[in-house]
Amino acid sequence: MPTKGLSKMTPDSLQLLAGFSAELIRQLEEISGYGADPEGGVTRLLYTDAWQQAQQALARRMQKLGLEVRFDAVGNLYGRLPGTAANLAGLKPVLTGSHIDTVANGGKYDGAYGVVASMLALGFLKAAYGMPKRTLEAVSFSEEEGSRFPLTFWGSGNVTGVRTLEQAAGITDPDGVSLQDAMRQAGFGGAGEVPDTSARRSDIGAYIELHIEQGGVLEHRRKQIGIVTAIVGQRRLGVRVLGTANHAGTTPMPMRKDALAGAAEMIVLTERLALAAGEPLVATAGKIEVSQGASNVVPGDVAFTLDIRHTDAPVLDAFYMNLQNELEAVARRRELEIEITEHLHVTPVQMDSAISNEIERICEDGGRPYLRMPSGAGHDAQLLGAVCPAAMIFVPSRAGISHSPAEYTSAEELIAGFQTLVHLLYQYGYGGKADDDI
Amino acid sequence: MPTKGLSKMTPDSLQLLAGFSAELIRQLEEISGYGADPEGGVTRLLYTDAWQQAQQALARRMQKLGLEVRFDAVGNLYGRLPGTAANLAGLKPVLTGSHIDTVANGGKYDGAYGVVASMLALGFLKAAYGMPKRTLEAVSFSEEEGSRFPLTFWGSGNVTGVRTLEQAAGITDPDGVSLQDAMRQAGFGGAGEVPDTSARRSDIGAYIELHIEQGGVLEHRRKQIGIVTAIVGQRRLGVRVLGTANHAGTTPMPMRKDALAGAAEMIVLTERLALAAGEPLVATAGKIEVSQGASNVVPGDVAFTLDIRHTDAPVLDAFYMNLQNELEAVARRRELEIEITEHLHVTPVQMDSAISNEIERICEDGGRPYLRMPSGAGHDAQLLGAVCPAAMIFVPSRAGISHSPAEYTSAEELIAGFQTLVHLLYQYGYGGKADDDI
Repeated sequence: MPTKGLSKMTPDSLQLLAGFSAELIRQLEEISGYGADPEGGVTRLLYTDAWQQAQQALARRMQKLGLEVRFDAVGNLYGRLPGTAANLAGLKPVLTGSHIDTVANGGKYDGAYGVVASMLALGFLKAAYGMPKRTLEAVSFSEEEGSRFPLTFWGSGNVTGVRTLEQAAGITDPDGVSLQDAMRQAGFGGAGEVPDTSARRSDIGAYIELHIEQGGVLEHRRKQIGIVTAIVGQRRLGVRVLGTANHAGTTPMPMRKDALAGAAEMIVLTERLALAAGEPLVATAGKIEVSQGASNVVPGDVAFTLDIRHTDAPVLDAFYMNLQNELEAVARRRELEIEITEHLHVTPVQMDSAISNEIERICEDGGRPYLRMPSGAGHDAQLLGAVCPAAMIFVPSRAGISHSPAEYTSAEELIAGFQTLVHLLYQYGYGGKADDDI
Repeated sequence: MPTKGLSKMTPDSLQLLAGFSAELIRQLEEISGYGADPEGGVTRLLYTDAWQQAQQALARRMQKLGLEVRFDAVGNLYGRLPGTAANLAGLKPVLTGSHIDTVANGGKYDGAYGVVASMLALGFLKAAYGMPKRTLEAVSFSEEEGSRFPLTFWGSGNVTGVRTLEQAAGITDPDGVSLQDAMRQAGFGGAGEVPDTSARRSDIGAYIELHIEQGGVLEHRRKQIGIVTAIVGQRRLGVRVLGTANHAGTTPMPMRKDALAGAAEMIVLTERLALAAGEPLVATAGKIEVSQGASNVVPGDVAFTLDIRHTDAPVLDAFYMNLQNELEAVARRRELEIEITEHLHVTPVQMDSAISNEIERICEDGGRPYLRMPSGAGHDAQLLGAVCPAAMIFVPSRAGISHSPAEYTSAEELIAGFQTLVHLLYQYGYGGKADDDI
């Protein structure tokens, strides 16, 4: 049975969609004004004034679009189109959105794109087709980046239950403000009109997130849409290498236990093993420090970080085990000590294949070049994906740059992603997929 | 003609020398009390109170030993035994000593050993043999380490003319105190009784410096005395590697321009080339930094230091030229940019072979195991060696450790070096070498 879709839109609907598409570009620019910083970027940290103004502005826009608006206890903003189907009890809502917070001096698109697009997609669908059979909800998650407080996914984490309000008292930002106080000052967590109850939900039928790629693959491969197969798992490690600090002039080369030369060999080896493992495995040494280093001292104590990612847990684990053995062998041969500490261990999350197939079909219908690809970055979809079917749509990032004022996606590409999302939500809200149990 | 030496000392002289040897150990401990720091080390920075007290204490001891004592304009302390030879005008003084300043939290032996030993050597010679034919002078140079102000060899540099009083106004310590003000507050540079004239000398016939090795070669080779063949030349470089900072999760390995992986390959390569070049070449990467590094960002900007040393200028230059080409080749292959900046370029200085041969003969006479070896560290002898014949005697450093409270040389080894110096100074002050033009 061919799926009913939007491929045969009326001229009126097409014109309306063009208007909402233009609105997407305009509103995305407007929202990026909240937290605009002097360096040309956006700094919209959780519960700050800029953050509050952005969420309030989004709430007003959702209201205008005819959505039912509410904040939950941690400041997640929802805009809802209630479903009209007779058997609605069996049709769980489809949630779509992203996060509104940014890193310090970040870009305009990371998170905000998915938020604004979701809200406008629902606005368009309501304007063009009335209320959906299945409930559709747009969400602006309060926090994903971990850029103010030392924890990530505060928004989607509270929705899915991996974070709880009780955590907020013990976590402080660099100025010593607790997450609880910041949340209450912003009117959440029991301080405002929103009741101080859990933000957790168990009624979500599916989650769809539209996001910039934050990498250079789509641009490099000249594709317009990325269909995310899985969000990578991560292991973040601290590696400390201990040798013997010595005078750089008086210690002959063969007598050295040089911790930096050892660490350098380990970094080169890690890169070589990652290249040999092939995509999507990535391994990165991002920081390195020589403790009490001086230009005329053979380094005795070096620490560096390793970040290893892959979409498949057993592959990631096997790579890590082998790498650990190889690094230890380098240390042994050089008579150095090595200490490896794991700071983060995130399991890969697979995206839903049925929804992904729908996205693929929509791309083919629309003649949009697409690519199935992993997400190397973390996203709210990985938390939602653990509790319901989840999918992600990527659009290209120019030069792969993100978390920077230079973050950029062209209007054409932003609109292509938006329209793909609109088609997909039509499928699940109004179309052939409305009665399926996704 | 066999050289007249001390090998046939009288029982009285031997007993006297034993007394002065014990005094060496005692006085070295005493002097290390000036600037003793809470970490168990010595911090005696140029012109500080601890430094002034140490120089004054040494001046009093020199006086007691019957030396003619004077400070020069930059705080170098001299103790002189005037020569009695009829043709004294043709016999330039033999100078012996080292520096009294230390690094921050340094050891008891670096510099101070040579100062105290020189003074006591002259004291012993005068007590045992009266005034010398040729003038002998002990010196406690004001500064060698560069640990307070960003310049080294302030003491011997002013004596040899590579430093001048005029430089002092423009150089400040980390607290913003100028070298000139610090010098004047300590009573030098025109502020005290010492005339504000150049410390430069052109009358020095030879310079002999007794010093700890600051490396592990003598200990490793089980030798008691090192006879320095040359003081290495140095090139200190800053290497900056520029790639493209990118997301560590979303940038596939083949698409990266990872500045840290590139720098790591360069450091491993430098080590390999240095090992292949063989001793005495040493090359050290001592510090490394990722600019704006984060564990989840592919490094785009990395800087590291390189310190390269060899005793032979053409060999050092050739190694550096080749290394530069090799590092540039790594950068080219990885599509990285590289900038190499030279911060220091010191030419190697050869020690005087005639004096070194005398030291060797004394070691053989005394049955002391010795080793001809380069000095990988800089010393006052390299400045004096540029204007007169110079030689250095090394004693072992336990585990090669220096510039640390753990710096240590046993009393037995300190005394072996002291007695070798005594024999050598007797040669030139009283003995067969008194009439030679060294």
